[in-house]
Amino acid sequence: MRRTLGEIARSLGGTLGGPEELEVDRVAHPSACGSGAICVWFAEGAPPELPEGAACVVGEDAAPPNGPHIRVPTPKSALAELLRLLHPEAPPEPGVHPTAVVSAAAEIGADVHIGAHTVIGAASIGARCIVGAQSYLGDGVTIGEDTRLFPRVTVLDGCTIGARVRIHSGTIIGADGFGYEPGPEGLVKVPQVGTVVVEDDVELGASVAIDRATLPGTATVVGRGTKVDNLVQVGHNVRVGQMAVICGLAGLAGSCTIGDGAVVGGAVGIRDHIEIGAGARIGGKAAVTRSVLPGEDVMGHPARPVQEHLRIQAALSRLPEVLRRLRALEKAAGGTDDPQA
Amino acid sequence: MRRTLGEIARSLGGTLGGPEELEVDRVAHPSACGSGAICVWFAEGAPPELPEGAACVVGEDAAPPNGPHIRVPTPKSALAELLRLLHPEAPPEPGVHPTAVVSAAAEIGADVHIGAHTVIGAASIGARCIVGAQSYLGDGVTIGEDTRLFPRVTVLDGCTIGARVRIHSGTIIGADGFGYEPGPEGLVKVPQVGTVVVEDDVELGASVAIDRATLPGTATVVGRGTKVDNLVQVGHNVRVGQMAVICGLAGLAGSCTIGDGAVVGGAVGIRDHIEIGAGARIGGKAAVTRSVLPGEDVMGHPARPVQEHLRIQAALSRLPEVLRRLRALEKAAGGTDDPQA
Amino acid sequence: MRRTLGEIARSLGGTLGGPEELEVDRVAHPSACGSGAICVWFAEGAPPELPEGAACVVGEDAAPPNGPHIRVPTPKSALAELLRLLHPEAPPEPGVHPTAVVSAAAEIGADVHIGAHTVIGAASIGARCIVGAQSYLGDGVTIGEDTRLFPRVTVLDGCTIGARVRIHSGTIIGADGFGYEPGPEGLVKVPQVGTVVVEDDVELGASVAIDRATLPGTATVVGRGTKVDNLVQVGHNVRVGQMAVICGLAGLAGSCTIGDGAVVGGAVGIRDHIEIGAGARIGGKAAVTRSVLPGEDVMGHPARPVQEHLRIQAALSRLPEVLRRLRALEKAAGGTDDPQA
Repeated sequence: MRRTLGEIARSLGGTLGGPEELEVDRVAHPSACGSGAICVWFAEGAPPELPEGAACVVGEDAAPPNGPHIRVPTPKSALAELLRLLHPEAPPEPGVHPTAVVSAAAEIGADVHIGAHTVIGAASIGARCIVGAQSYLGDGVTIGEDTRLFPRVTVLDGCTIGARVRIHSGTIIGADGFGYEPGPEGLVKVPQVGTVVVEDDVELGASVAIDRATLPGTATVVGRGTKVDNLVQVGHNVRVGQMAVICGLAGLAGSCTIGDGAVVGGAVGIRDHIEIGAGARIGGKAAVTRSVLPGEDVMGHPARPVQEHLRIQAALSRLPEVLRRLRALEKAAGGTDDPQA
Repeated sequence: MRRTLGEIARSLGGTLGGPEELEVDRVAHPSACGSGAICVWFAEGAPPELPEGAACVVGEDAAPPNGPHIRVPTPKSALAELLRLLHPEAPPEPGVHPTAVVSAAAEIGADVHIGAHTVIGAASIGARCIVGAQSYLGDGVTIGEDTRLFPRVTVLDGCTIGARVRIHSGTIIGADGFGYEPGPEGLVKVPQVGTVVVEDDVELGASVAIDRATLPGTATVVGRGTKVDNLVQVGHNVRVGQMAVICGLAGLAGSCTIGDGAVVGGAVGIRDHIEIGAGARIGGKAAVTRSVLPGEDVMGHPARPVQEHLRIQAALSRLPEVLRRLRALEKAAGGTDDPQA
Repeated sequence: MRRTLGEIARSLGGTLGGPEELEVDRVAHPSACGSGAICVWFAEGAPPELPEGAACVVGEDAAPPNGPHIRVPTPKSALAELLRLLHPEAPPEPGVHPTAVVSAAAEIGADVHIGAHTVIGAASIGARCIVGAQSYLGDGVTIGEDTRLFPRVTVLDGCTIGARVRIHSGTIIGADGFGYEPGPEGLVKVPQVGTVVVEDDVELGASVAIDRATLPGTATVVGRGTKVDNLVQVGHNVRVGQMAVICGLAGLAGSCTIGDGAVVGGAVGIRDHIEIGAGARIGGKAAVTRSVLPGEDVMGHPARPVQEHLRIQAALSRLPEVLRRLRALEKAAGGTDDPQA
């Protein structure tokens, strides 16, 4: 998509330094920004040398680039907008593919795309949704407007997806929660008859698994605007708040609660029934065994407050030395309690 | 499904305190148990105040509720039975969907359901099985009676699934094990020509991966009654015993053995060729690098016996203090070995 | 597949000790090697007693077996070759299944197999490829010759797969990377408009997720000959070198680099923007928070050089004892700083 620097500067709300009419057609990395491309510079130091016909977006305090540029307050945010401007998504055309198997009881909104080999039960799909090829929507599923499911997404019976949600391939919403009780002949399954609610503006990565709640009339919830990365497990009855971030391979065990705006790092494990406060941040691969206060930062295995964790890790590196020094003191004191001395 | 309290009390084997003919049609959480609903109380303290028309299941020692109730020995187990009574699963009707691609060599039992866009090779499917939409069964696959595969389950060539098994969406049974040998031009693949056996009464969560064994005539095995949660990896040649529990995101590396009744916590990693004894319990996110004895409880990274792990973790919190005290002693003794003092 | 010992000895480049014309038709475990089978012995001690009609492959220094055998330099490598000889893969026949939905713009090479219920966009598929049932290839996808996708593989728009690649079921290539920037009304998505390149001779396990790069013209790369196990997450802009090994449930966060020949253990987590040097080895479940030098071995949580990790773990087991000994010294010195004494 070709755009002039003038159009781009107006879209970004930035100040143009260069010819209004220069056209660019793509975003590039600063190290590979050729003629017709525009890059975004948010690292330290001077912006790169630009060849003829290239342009650069820089922060307000950056050194002046050697060519056409646009100054903006936050270049990192400008990158997102710039990618959207020059590389807009090309969604598939509306229409129901002839190989789709769609229940007569389904309610399909205006301008919906339903891809090849999809299976759609008695679901309700909002206007302008895209249901990718080979996806499955069960009976009683509701999907809000402008939501996009990529190919091969599974939403099982009774689950609700909001508007402007984006769900990547392989994700499974509404499988049974993991609940059993001991019985005389082994484990007895606790039926899982609740549902899942994914609120508006959520994005779910590839191969995420969100289990349905246990009790009827209840739901596992992912709150508005929350972003979930690939291969994350969300157990039954979990409640994730709004605008939270859950990174890849994290596991949220049953009935835990993640507060608004919390950040859960990659491969973090959170024990069942734990409460993570709003705005808390859990470092990557932490094992969270106790509730975390709002705004608290924890890390480690088991997770501790960040400062305590770092102090302990620093001391740990000196632990072999501590043993040596202790032995020296004991020797000087005329004896030792060291069972290995 | 409407049921009278009398019917429910008889099904639960409980003692009715209230009108035999009162009807309820759903299970509710004790905090939201309205007219026509029944809840189960197994927390501490007094049961909740019930509105007119509601009922409650309580333990034998619980304080008397203010309304109709049923006393049972173990309310938690009663919850499972109650959910089954009032919210029975509604499986799809028997029949083969016209879009299913079924090999002429497949043997399909009586009253089997085969969903839309499935692909079925020369497989044998027992009576009353449900094969969810978009599932794939390879050649030589055998499935016992009354087994349910949810949409989008993959069972590759030659694998065997027992009776009354329940497999959730996205699960892949029988992909190649991860075996390579160094060769002159890089890694050489060791062909994986064994199979997978999933025994009776197993439940597998969403997006589980169970690899096939290496040698012909051998199998990776998941034993009778074992329950496996979402996103679990079971490597080639692994043998999981009966009635074991494997929680979400756990990884069982190749050739390890999990004993009967063992419990593997969420996101646990078990090294290859490790043996976990019967009834052992592995705490969530543990890194198991040595075999675990029958009945032993371990946790941590690396995994240690629980008591030792807890002692070490308690001492760890005091480690920075240990360094201070050691320095004080050294100073008093007239010198220091502290390389950083 | 029946083969004579003479044929097998020639294929393995080994020395035959026994009748050239003896036929075997399968590989067996040494403990179950019956008549007509051949096993490979690479454990310590004497090879097993063989029944009439069985044979054994042994190392050059092994004690002589009691029956027909073949001596080879590296029996473990011979196992791979032997499995390939006696249990060759039986790939499906070339041809496009009538239920496949194939774009008119797709370019399909000679002798390609395209399975049932696949969906193929304007993709280019090399000669002799196998595209398993229910797979999805988006527009602009390119696949080299002799590549095999098992059922239910997803390759999204614009991604490139090399020759002789093997991708197992459930794997998703080219979902959006996980990139957001804070905005006035919450997180703003950074569009992900790069692609993924999977080079020649790579194998990817089941339910792997490899995200597309952020910038146009850039790619997340998995290098030639690298092997990736099940349920691995590869973030956007990651570059995995050649002949690397990434074990199950590992997570490579965005923009990290894995050098040639590196080995990443199971369930390892690697922080974003980290560099793992060529030939480095990361122990299972390690949490890697700093770059790792070429050839370095690290393990633990957080990851440390192996020797340091082992010293610390050994000292840790003695930490409760350290506290006791410290208290004894303080008491002898006439006082204590122990806040809990």
